[in-house]
Amino acid sequence: MTFERLWSDLAPVGRSTASGGYFRQPFGSAEREAHAWFVEAATARDLRVETDGFGTTLAWWEPEGADGPAVLTGSHLDSVLDGGAFDGPLGVVSGLAAIDLLRARGVVPRRPIAVAAFVEEEGSRFGLACLGSRLATGTTTPEAAAALTDRDGTRLGDVWADVGLDPSAGSPWLARVGAFVELHVEQGRDLVDRDAAVGAASAIWPHGRYRFDVTGEANHAGTTRMEDRVDPMLTFAMTALAANKQARLAGQRATFGRVDVAPNGTNAVPSRVTAWLDARCSTDEGLQTLVAAITEQAAQRAGRDGTTLVVTAESVSPAVTFDADLTARLVTGHDGPDWPVVPTQAGHDAGVLAAAGVPTAMLFVRNPTGVSHAPSEHAGTADCLAGVEALATSLERLAG
Amino acid sequence: MTFERLWSDLAPVGRSTASGGYFRQPFGSAEREAHAWFVEAATARDLRVETDGFGTTLAWWEPEGADGPAVLTGSHLDSVLDGGAFDGPLGVVSGLAAIDLLRARGVVPRRPIAVAAFVEEEGSRFGLACLGSRLATGTTTPEAAAALTDRDGTRLGDVWADVGLDPSAGSPWLARVGAFVELHVEQGRDLVDRDAAVGAASAIWPHGRYRFDVTGEANHAGTTRMEDRVDPMLTFAMTALAANKQARLAGQRATFGRVDVAPNGTNAVPSRVTAWLDARCSTDEGLQTLVAAITEQAAQRAGRDGTTLVVTAESVSPAVTFDADLTARLVTGHDGPDWPVVPTQAGHDAGVLAAAGVPTAMLFVRNPTGVSHAPSEHAGTADCLAGVEALATSLERLAG
Repeated sequence: MTFERLWSDLAPVGRSTASGGYFRQPFGSAEREAHAWFVEAATARDLRVETDGFGTTLAWWEPEGADGPAVLTGSHLDSVLDGGAFDGPLGVVSGLAAIDLLRARGVVPRRPIAVAAFVEEEGSRFGLACLGSRLATGTTTPEAAAALTDRDGTRLGDVWADVGLDPSAGSPWLARVGAFVELHVEQGRDLVDRDAAVGAASAIWPHGRYRFDVTGEANHAGTTRMEDRVDPMLTFAMTALAANKQARLAGQRATFGRVDVAPNGTNAVPSRVTAWLDARCSTDEGLQTLVAAITEQAAQRAGRDGTTLVVTAESVSPAVTFDADLTARLVTGHDGPDWPVVPTQAGHDAGVLAAAGVPTAMLFVRNPTGVSHAPSEHAGTADCLAGVEALATSLERLAG
Repeated sequence: MTFERLWSDLAPVGRSTASGGYFRQPFGSAEREAHAWFVEAATARDLRVETDGFGTTLAWWEPEGADGPAVLTGSHLDSVLDGGAFDGPLGVVSGLAAIDLLRARGVVPRRPIAVAAFVEEEGSRFGLACLGSRLATGTTTPEAAAALTDRDGTRLGDVWADVGLDPSAGSPWLARVGAFVELHVEQGRDLVDRDAAVGAASAIWPHGRYRFDVTGEANHAGTTRMEDRVDPMLTFAMTALAANKQARLAGQRATFGRVDVAPNGTNAVPSRVTAWLDARCSTDEGLQTLVAAITEQAAQRAGRDGTTLVVTAESVSPAVTFDADLTARLVTGHDGPDWPVVPTQAGHDAGVLAAAGVPTAMLFVRNPTGVSHAPSEHAGTADCLAGVEALATSLERLAG
């Protein structure tokens, strides 16, 4: 019952009545409310709350006598724009529910256990995904992060100051962590195909975000002859189609989901189109080849349109392989078959910690349609409860 | 000197220091400041100021004994987003300067003369171009206009109330107008080719704005296989390329300059792309054929992408021919050759008044590059002064 209660308390926070999707942008009102919910739920459980210098918050279970490297679980509470309910919150809620379950069973771990709510995992406000874990591990510097701006031009450094965070405090919790297990809703249908409620992750595909700035010449949409135009919309349009085709041919992923047009007026040829490519491949080499092919086609079209193209890699995450020994300890020895171990194309804080050398595993909970980053993202209650059980067992094995 | 002084007073209002372009959105702070400048300049000239129920403002020169149908000149003060300095303001400033010139020459017109600053000519805030003249002529009803919303969802009706306008007051000035002459910067290079500082307009091409709503299915940009996607960005991209190609082949104009993507996140396949087509042709039939061809190609692509396409004509303006007799009275009988008479692809308040039966002519001032709706839009001072001279002569002929 504890899972359902936690879940229903959190569910209304940041939900759009129009779409049913979630808008929990980092440091926005809905995300702050979700953060306050987490602090309250942790406090009600006598868990010690720790917020680091960047906004990532941990709830510590430190039974008397527990010491040594801690076992960390948790995920994030922020969402993409109009995202689903499960991506992030399922891992946070399951972490608290797993502690409830272990306590109800009288388990007293020998090591501390913590549940993390990582800040800005989706990159939906400041553009850099997994920002909390990147900052904690030093993958991104506080100075670089502070200079990031949102769509309104607000600097992250100013937002930190507004909410009372002190980036110089850093992330002292990281040094205590001996292992990390992140539970997450699956963002594909591998577990559906394998008829399993729960699985573990083998690896994260390499992936990156690349900004395509195409500059043309603003002009009147009525009076400017077609042959006199320098229209960046055409360069972008061909690039979006090329990205889709290249990814399809290669069995990989390429998406232009975000576009910003200037001046964005109906009766003006645009002066500039900025669009963001999200690209993911099964290998690092494949990712480089894919992005190079898309950039080459964009550059060719820019040459024909007379536009100027600049491609900037905003973030590139190489392939991450999760800790095989750790994963093997978790997926075997249960009633029924071993949990399947499957790859994912989605980035996670678990990937950042793994890349930084923290022994890390991920658990997935089955998603009937595979849809995520959308209001219809879903996991059934029975599968969520199986996830809590799997996470509790995993924490007991690692901290017991 | 009066033109240069007026011009330099108005020039800083709403200018972006970053681009040098103008952001004078209707009822926004910069446009209100421009409007206040106009009232002040008119008052300083002892011209009677009249603001109608929708925000269009007129400065009346009514010398003692002047009566009968009035001669109207003027243009508008609002701009597109990041527009040029001349589109609109040149006609307003030239109207005031022409009155100064006539007075300096001791001309006392037998008919009243008015300079208008039409409200919301560009349609850059509420989406409907020439709104002030459409409302004055009844081409658009106050009820329909009041329900229009800007990008933030603000209703025009609420904006009117906020600035103290009473739409039920209507546009009583229209009944007094016997002729209208709008002076405007040329938005092409016909006058450059003809080596003329000033010309007149023969006709306005038919043109329209069409909203393309393409609906797909939001999903995760990493985990969703390319073949499982329903991506409206692809439908839009192909449509933008098709529009360009169809217009090029037909010698017409088609532009997608404004795009709105939901949720517009880098790591999400969009759920919806809305884009606005601006289409213009030399004939009404040509416009229908062009838009039908673009819509057909968009629908075909939507069928392949699995997306849903809805095309809505937001405004369609048929061809407008200016008053040939009136134009003939203006372009002849000067020192040097007659002024050239050329067509334009741009909509104007003059077109709306002409379509409503008001005898109307337009004067153009040479634009060296032909660029407009962009910061580099330009007219040389000597040509602007020739425009003031031409307008003063025209007003004297019509009202003298």
